[in-house]
Amino acid sequence: MTSNRNRKILLAARPQGMPDERHFKMIEERIPEVKEGEVLIQTLYLSVDPYMRGRMSDAKSYAKPYEVGEPFIGGMVGKVIDSRNARFQVGQYVEGRLEWAEYNKSDGSTIRKLNPEWGPITTALHVLGMPGLTAYFGLIYIGQPKEGETIVISGASGAVGSIVGQIGKLKGCRVVGIAGADEKCAFLTKDLGFDAAINYKTAGNLKNALEEVCPDGVDVYFDNVGGAVSDAVMTKINFQSRIIVCGQISQYNLLTPELGPRVAGQLLKTSSLMKGFIVSDYADHNKEGLEQLSQWVREGKIQYRENIIDGFENTIEAFLGLFRGDNIGKQLVRVTEE
Amino acid sequence: MTSNRNRKILLAARPQGMPDERHFKMIEERIPEVKEGEVLIQTLYLSVDPYMRGRMSDAKSYAKPYEVGEPFIGGMVGKVIDSRNARFQVGQYVEGRLEWAEYNKSDGSTIRKLNPEWGPITTALHVLGMPGLTAYFGLIYIGQPKEGETIVISGASGAVGSIVGQIGKLKGCRVVGIAGADEKCAFLTKDLGFDAAINYKTAGNLKNALEEVCPDGVDVYFDNVGGAVSDAVMTKINFQSRIIVCGQISQYNLLTPELGPRVAGQLLKTSSLMKGFIVSDYADHNKEGLEQLSQWVREGKIQYRENIIDGFENTIEAFLGLFRGDNIGKQLVRVTEE
Repeated sequence: MTSNRNRKILLAARPQGMPDERHFKMIEERIPEVKEGEVLIQTLYLSVDPYMRGRMSDAKSYAKPYEVGEPFIGGMVGKVIDSRNARFQVGQYVEGRLEWAEYNKSDGSTIRKLNPEWGPITTALHVLGMPGLTAYFGLIYIGQPKEGETIVISGASGAVGSIVGQIGKLKGCRVVGIAGADEKCAFLTKDLGFDAAINYKTAGNLKNALEEVCPDGVDVYFDNVGGAVSDAVMTKINFQSRIIVCGQISQYNLLTPELGPRVAGQLLKTSSLMKGFIVSDYADHNKEGLEQLSQWVREGKIQYRENIIDGFENTIEAFLGLFRGDNIGKQLVRVTEE
Repeated sequence: MTSNRNRKILLAARPQGMPDERHFKMIEERIPEVKEGEVLIQTLYLSVDPYMRGRMSDAKSYAKPYEVGEPFIGGMVGKVIDSRNARFQVGQYVEGRLEWAEYNKSDGSTIRKLNPEWGPITTALHVLGMPGLTAYFGLIYIGQPKEGETIVISGASGAVGSIVGQIGKLKGCRVVGIAGADEKCAFLTKDLGFDAAINYKTAGNLKNALEEVCPDGVDVYFDNVGGAVSDAVMTKINFQSRIIVCGQISQYNLLTPELGPRVAGQLLKTSSLMKGFIVSDYADHNKEGLEQLSQWVREGKIQYRENIIDGFENTIEAFLGLFRGDNIGKQLVRVTEE
């Protein structure tokens, strides 16, 4: 600690539509003092995630809204730099959901120690953390993929989608990714082993493009984006298919909700299932999920990519970039050079 | 048999939008001769069911389309009047999916003998047949209602909906029906014990009407109709709710598919499940379902109502009436006075 400065990012105002700089406010406070039972954590990496857009609104949802004038809360990894809690020692790495700040204190209930044998500490924010578990639970518990089936993933090059597809390959499925840039598509097929990838921005008629790469239809659709992309996929679903609603990033910043083709009739005709979920629905299975994912990572069966922006002051920009599709793989902010 | 005449109803043309008389054709043939292994069945009651509208179209669906120039196939109960099959004796009552005709022959594979102890023979076409099993499987296996939860049913006074609500009451739930006539609503609350019923045609703002009778939100939505009614219910669903897509009668006769509010976001925010199904998905549980339903009927715990039209020539009219909402309870055609 060279200064006593602790920068934080607050919600300045609730956005209607796409958020911009006006909805965020950076402030400086003093680094908090730790009391008995508490630890002080220096932020190393912050995670920016699409679901946080929902918490900027006050509409009823699974996650409590952020309060105007209060800090954003998100995933981060950091280092214990002061401890009056016997469970944590100075120098240990921890992961938790804490304030968007350079320093946080915690009573220990909001953080967990990282197991350095599982991989680089940043993996706790993606493949061995919330996005990885989201991919695993959604695909395994809702999607229930069977060997030889076809899985389609929208938002396929993101932190969740890229893991979903690789698990799908491990389960013996044909895996097709949909993404919004040729570079992302190349990443999916060349680096991650997807069977095919579609750039929805240049594919023209998406139904036709899907027909070409899904000759046997779609058995599992892992949806991160919603909107027109999903409309096209829904026309190709097979009998007793499973649609996992993990995200709807195309809809989060709309000023008024969009109308679309009704899906109930299609679900009825095909005896299909559509299920929304949040990673905490499966919290009882966290240990199983993390063990399985870390094994796959150690064995080299799951690859990941990180998209890292340097500097706490660039957190807002990194977050807004999610909605422009800037990132391939997991978007992180490096707050401190170790 | 007083004559050798056998009237049949064929699909004359595929309808676009609402079907009318032009899409049906009544013909006369001779009563078929039975060969070794076959039985001759005189139709007593025909069932007309909303799902048959789907089979009049050639769009891909779970049920094979009817062929133009070929007879409609539907549920019926009849009497064996000639038999060259050792499993069936003259005078026995049978149920099956056979042609819309006064007489059918069968090799025995398309019919089952009725157990007269289970109730009147017509019950094999509703509470102790396809509609009853549809209600049972959809509510129990997909809806998984828990005591104290709120179930909302659209098309609640129909053959399926009226059974769903009564099973819901037996499971200790609050049950709210939506129907399109005050007489239907009175039937639901006064005769069947629903906690509340809403006439969607006169309720004004359906969301407000639902809010009033579902103070704790909606945990299970059993949907027979789709469209604007479902749009309203979907705004009231609770965390981890279950939406059973059993029918979409409001959509079957639309000339072009209707747009509506997207449901994926609502499923995501509430971690909810939406599932289409067809009764045959649960065929392995038919025995369990029929035994349970017949027990409830014998114990007087499940009531039913039949809406009977006399005369084979009125079958088309009875079928078309389904889409005008003419029926309370199960719509049947009595073909022959016993």
